[in-house]
Amino acid sequence: MTREKNAMLDLFPEAEKPIEIIPARKLAAKAAALYVAPADHFQTRPVDELLLDFDGIAGDFHAGPTRRAGGREPWYPRGTEMRNERQLSIVAADELAVVAQRMGLAEIRPEWIGANLVIEGVPNLSMLPAGTLLFFKGGVTLKVDAQNGPCRIAGRSIAENAGMADVEAGALLFPKMAKRLRGVVAWVEKPGTVRASEEISVRVPEQWIYQA
Amino acid sequence: MTREKNAMLDLFPEAEKPIEIIPARKLAAKAAALYVAPADHFQTRPVDELLLDFDGIAGDFHAGPTRRAGGREPWYPRGTEMRNERQLSIVAADELAVVAQRMGLAEIRPEWIGANLVIEGVPNLSMLPAGTLLFFKGGVTLKVDAQNGPCRIAGRSIAENAGMADVEAGALLFPKMAKRLRGVVAWVEKPGTVRASEEISVRVPEQWIYQA
Repeated sequence: MTREKNAMLDLFPEAEKPIEIIPARKLAAKAAALYVAPADHFQTRPVDELLLDFDGIAGDFHAGPTRRAGGREPWYPRGTEMRNERQLSIVAADELAVVAQRMGLAEIRPEWIGANLVIEGVPNLSMLPAGTLLFFKGGVTLKVDAQNGPCRIAGRSIAENAGMADVEAGALLFPKMAKRLRGVVAWVEKPGTVRASEEISVRVPEQWIYQA
Repeated sequence: MTREKNAMLDLFPEAEKPIEIIPARKLAAKAAALYVAPADHFQTRPVDELLLDFDGIAGDFHAGPTRRAGGREPWYPRGTEMRNERQLSIVAADELAVVAQRMGLAEIRPEWIGANLVIEGVPNLSMLPAGTLLFFKGGVTLKVDAQNGPCRIAGRSIAENAGMADVEAGALLFPKMAKRLRGVVAWVEKPGTVRASEEISVRVPEQWIYQA
């Protein structure tokens, strides 16, 4: 970590604590597995490649220039049209393994929770900051929008697919057990085709904590 | 600040330092002034309202679903088509005053550097994190993409408009003096019309520092 004298010190030279800027950094990763959802259901199925345009994965359930607001946007009436920043769901196998263990399951398969991409090689994937760029060797770029919040719909799908005795209890358990472990959502900055096993250069942007 | 036991502690109970999560917070602000650029030039002119669709300000120089990569994206060949996340330029008067002082100028007008919106009431505006939501009372939502990096084109415009003796020196001075003080760029999450003096509720998202 390096410290950078913040410009605010010139405004308020008496400020005790300058904002610490963590420099941008790169990580090497891999597209371990790819999945697409049919247009009418959020669960995904394995594929060999993802065809991406500016709206997301061509034909996927979550593709589109805009989407309808839901429970994640309590500040909007349900159904409000808003920009679709949640085009792709990205998860990590090690994080899903922790969630599975917590839920008493042998596994949670990425397709059960509608993941489009399993990334290998990024520790704490769910904690990647907004604005992280994923440069795929084949030319595609995805931009991380935010940490993905686990919801009951995905929980119910896990409970059903894993054959849990109490599906509703399983549905409720997932949001608690998967907090900060359910990966991130991202949108397409630069379109193209992503292939399984493709290398990814992950650019974590400069980081700091905003203080008002 | 509150501390939240990070999920990683369950993975690595021996971890020394859990990730500190700073909760989301709200700030009250105001749209102090609005500006639009003609379609063929980045300099803006004052207006009474901004008409926003999902592509940005209707008819503005920076509007569009995509844009061409430039010096800010050294990883792409110049001219590469990429998603336009830089639809609006947002600045703060107090920060521009610091830059003006550093450059030996009486003022830097927002329109000289192509600003679309002057926001009042947000301290350290340029440090707002990616993902910050700006809810305008009239219904529009903008989402902050990133801190805006000051460039020589804006510097040259300042030098010319302020009548600096050495325009090229002024152009070069701006990127140095305006670092972390040139505001942020944002895109439209929810379209509509923004009017001068409109109230804004600023939602700063949860924050943390990602550590790989």
